[in-house]
Amino acid sequence: MYTYARPIARLIEELGRLPGIGPKTAQRLAFHVVSGSVERARSLAQAIIEAKENTVYCSVCCNITDVDPCRVCTAPDRDPSILCVVEQPRDVVAVERTHEFKGRYHVLHGAISPMEGIGPSQLRIKELLSRCKDGQVKEIVIATDPDPEGEATALYLARLLKPLGIRITRMAHGMPVGGDLEYVDEVTLARALEGRREL
Amino acid sequence: MYTYARPIARLIEELGRLPGIGPKTAQRLAFHVVSGSVERARSLAQAIIEAKENTVYCSVCCNITDVDPCRVCTAPDRDPSILCVVEQPRDVVAVERTHEFKGRYHVLHGAISPMEGIGPSQLRIKELLSRCKDGQVKEIVIATDPDPEGEATALYLARLLKPLGIRITRMAHGMPVGGDLEYVDEVTLARALEGRREL
Repeated sequence: MYTYARPIARLIEELGRLPGIGPKTAQRLAFHVVSGSVERARSLAQAIIEAKENTVYCSVCCNITDVDPCRVCTAPDRDPSILCVVEQPRDVVAVERTHEFKGRYHVLHGAISPMEGIGPSQLRIKELLSRCKDGQVKEIVIATDPDPEGEATALYLARLLKPLGIRITRMAHGMPVGGDLEYVDEVTLARALEGRREL
Repeated sequence: MYTYARPIARLIEELGRLPGIGPKTAQRLAFHVVSGSVERARSLAQAIIEAKENTVYCSVCCNITDVDPCRVCTAPDRDPSILCVVEQPRDVVAVERTHEFKGRYHVLHGAISPMEGIGPSQLRIKELLSRCKDGQVKEIVIATDPDPEGEATALYLARLLKPLGIRITRMAHGMPVGGDLEYVDEVTLARALEGRREL
């Protein structure tokens, strides 16, 4: 049986290792690359190498950055007294899109998950603690995911940081804007009811 | 507003150009690359470049290959008197997976589609004709897609090649094996009825 030419088979294999890319998608992407121009293929390859080689973790907030400390940590117009703690670098961009948060960030790179064997020591909690020691940080908004791991991490951080005299807040849970009440799950609905506000 | 570090933004943009990869998927893939090892990133980048640079179109069957003529065209155990005409290189691998076809292939690289402005001259039909001129080819199985473009291409090829005294056949249309009769569309069902065979 004839299969793909070796360089194509190798590309399909490499692409198939990416998360969420099955064999069919890997094949489609590989043929797209092969039928495109050499410049396009080189440009993609170079972007992959550069994204990996030209980025580091910010020594202050642990976000992925191309300059250390990152642009948010050095921006003079960002309030250093309020930190938003998130699980992943992509969460920083999600919060930034709201245009509502003017403080700085701290990226944990995960959440406490006994099931996956991830404890507090594997997260960037030590770095967060050392940022809180000089008394400059007045409030920490915990914006970990609203799932069991994110909740556990939020509780852990709250217990750890409250003794330092810092105000610890958590993102509100409730109904998503634009959603349909009947499709909201009961746990979210219960939280929305619990957190109801006067109009 | 802070967005991604430049090398990450560039990688997300590059990945987002691939077919079927939206901004969210591109972002997820980019972070996967960045959080992986340098070796993994380099290996993927190299596979992309090599798949593009180390492959050519086979001068005989027009399939994508790393040696010209390709392995199928030079294999001594493949019958040169029967050709299977397909639209895309991936179709060759699909037919090969059946282990039923022992002839050779011809890849058209598309189908006739007036809507997209693709006429016979943009397909590898000239190359197919020149393969049929020495009288070695006795049968051509047209395995273009069972859609309007594939059907149009099949009819066009049949009219073009029949005068050369070659037997022209078309892949059978009918119910997919393992399918559920009630979910088969009416056109396919009509074709299955039309092509019924005695048991």
